[in-house]
Amino acid sequence: MSTTEQPVSVEQARVRTFAWTDPAELAAGAAGLSGLETMQAIIEGTLPSPPFASALGIEVVEVGFGRAVFAVDPAEWMYNPLGSVHGGVAATLLDSAMGCAVHTTLDAGEGYTTTDLQVRYLRAMRAGGGRALAEGRVVHGGRRTATAEGRLYLEQEPDHLFAHASTGCAIFR
Amino acid sequence: MSTTEQPVSVEQARVRTFAWTDPAELAAGAAGLSGLETMQAIIEGTLPSPPFASALGIEVVEVGFGRAVFAVDPAEWMYNPLGSVHGGVAATLLDSAMGCAVHTTLDAGEGYTTTDLQVRYLRAMRAGGGRALAEGRVVHGGRRTATAEGRLYLEQEPDHLFAHASTGCAIFR
Amino acid sequence: MSTTEQPVSVEQARVRTFAWTDPAELAAGAAGLSGLETMQAIIEGTLPSPPFASALGIEVVEVGFGRAVFAVDPAEWMYNPLGSVHGGVAATLLDSAMGCAVHTTLDAGEGYTTTDLQVRYLRAMRAGGGRALAEGRVVHGGRRTATAEGRLYLEQEPDHLFAHASTGCAIFR
Amino acid sequence: MSTTEQPVSVEQARVRTFAWTDPAELAAGAAGLSGLETMQAIIEGTLPSPPFASALGIEVVEVGFGRAVFAVDPAEWMYNPLGSVHGGVAATLLDSAMGCAVHTTLDAGEGYTTTDLQVRYLRAMRAGGGRALAEGRVVHGGRRTATAEGRLYLEQEPDHLFAHASTGCAIFR
Repeated sequence: MSTTEQPVSVEQARVRTFAWTDPAELAAGAAGLSGLETMQAIIEGTLPSPPFASALGIEVVEVGFGRAVFAVDPAEWMYNPLGSVHGGVAATLLDSAMGCAVHTTLDAGEGYTTTDLQVRYLRAMRAGGGRALAEGRVVHGGRRTATAEGRLYLEQEPDHLFAHASTGCAIFR
Repeated sequence: MSTTEQPVSVEQARVRTFAWTDPAELAAGAAGLSGLETMQAIIEGTLPSPPFASALGIEVVEVGFGRAVFAVDPAEWMYNPLGSVHGGVAATLLDSAMGCAVHTTLDAGEGYTTTDLQVRYLRAMRAGGGRALAEGRVVHGGRRTATAEGRLYLEQEPDHLFAHASTGCAIFR
Repeated sequence: MSTTEQPVSVEQARVRTFAWTDPAELAAGAAGLSGLETMQAIIEGTLPSPPFASALGIEVVEVGFGRAVFAVDPAEWMYNPLGSVHGGVAATLLDSAMGCAVHTTLDAGEGYTTTDLQVRYLRAMRAGGGRALAEGRVVHGGRRTATAEGRLYLEQEPDHLFAHASTGCAIFR
Repeated sequence: MSTTEQPVSVEQARVRTFAWTDPAELAAGAAGLSGLETMQAIIEGTLPSPPFASALGIEVVEVGFGRAVFAVDPAEWMYNPLGSVHGGVAATLLDSAMGCAVHTTLDAGEGYTTTDLQVRYLRAMRAGGGRALAEGRVVHGGRRTATAEGRLYLEQEPDHLFAHASTGCAIFR
């Protein structure tokens, strides 16, 4: 048997596998919880991560009232055709952090949807550069609408800003 | 043999595996090609898809000068905590379609980066609802900057708009 | 009497005077009218222009369901420190055209407010270059929210685009 | 003499008159000055205000490296058809404050243009409510691009936020 007939190694093949949890479990577990309690339960592991966070390897690092921090480790499988991490990864992280910051201000039974997201890209993220943190903060929390701002930066060098962003949400009370 | 020793089925485990290609291959193959030629080679399969397109199951459907259409099939693993497809998927698709629309206007040796992306979310995408198309069109192609607009809609019902968007790019000539 | 005691001419003094109408008159006249009827009454002159339109010399040129066109004649008094018309003039025109496009879709007794405005500046407007038109069109008219897009261009050369824009509105029914 | 021959009072007529200075004077005076020196000369009155600032009654209150504060006193002549100050006034103030914040970071001979402006409207401004301040701060000052954020609030109650905003600029060195 020649070596060419041997299966390629995982590294050669560049393959990633991820698992996720039925989103109905998260929804059921979050019923009766405030937004802040829901996010804390995800951090503590008593509620599962949402599926797309598992898909991208995103984790919630920290939450407080009106504030949320998410993390991701930039990797080659996130690359765009330009040789750096796709802007969609930054957009997903910032949307998550800002949306969850708004979510932490809501009571049980209240909801929100994002009406718009704007991301300003400053520097490219690259694999091997270290973990990136996205921090979202509520600017305005009204009865019907809320807004938030976000920053995406290198964990070990917070002044190294990859992007900043803002968002508008509609609130359902 | 006890039942605990039996492997879980893929469906129970909610697992997805994807493979991608070394982005250096795409970069090497695109050298000497215009933006439009590069995108056409990706559609024809003579150049590999960029990694993050493989990660999200995004494909380029159609390109022309100043125009690009991308497709995705919304799936459960793309869900956010709110029970619908994460806004980051729409942002990634629209960013891809608008950025590539700008790319198709560039000659070999010219480049671009996205300076900002804005997405307006109108309706949630859900698994099983059918394929979604993101179409990007250049509005302004200048020497130093370009802008584009995008629409994300249901393939079988183009009036069913999920989101619309716009972007600004810096051009390097 | 020496010539130096004579009053300066209007041209030397660079002075502009404008008049406006008590906004309560417009509000009273619009009561019981739909958005489209209100805008048509302003065009026909049976309702007064809103004050800030008088201040900037902006006029409504044309309205239809989901669509509105506004005009302005760029002038030196609109200049910024960079030697061209201030971006605030383009923002005001586009905000007016897009907001009124949304307004034309509302029944009597319904209202709206703009939640965000984004303007992409492509070319500078300058005095003496001819009248500029801002056209707004509704993209999404929902029960609680609406979005619109806008274009600002030279009246005699519609491909000469000064700016494009989009907006999000909250609707009160 | 009948009463109809008497001139209407200024209050009845709702008339405003403003004067401005040939923008070429400002351009000539700013030649050889850095952005910060130019803005400081406008505050000190050794350089004239730009025309559109005179038109809207906007004044520069304070500048520093990467920071600028502008003020306006909301008035009835700024009203939109909805019975509050037109969003174009907030957009003009925030665009001015953020653009000038970027300008303060530039050397003599360097220039910039605003590529996009986004404003998030939170509360309406009304006449008689007191002076509003717009503060712009640079977030990213790069070689080819810069970004800034802005806040518009009531002078005597800074937590009373009318709007927040961000902008992207192209830099010419």
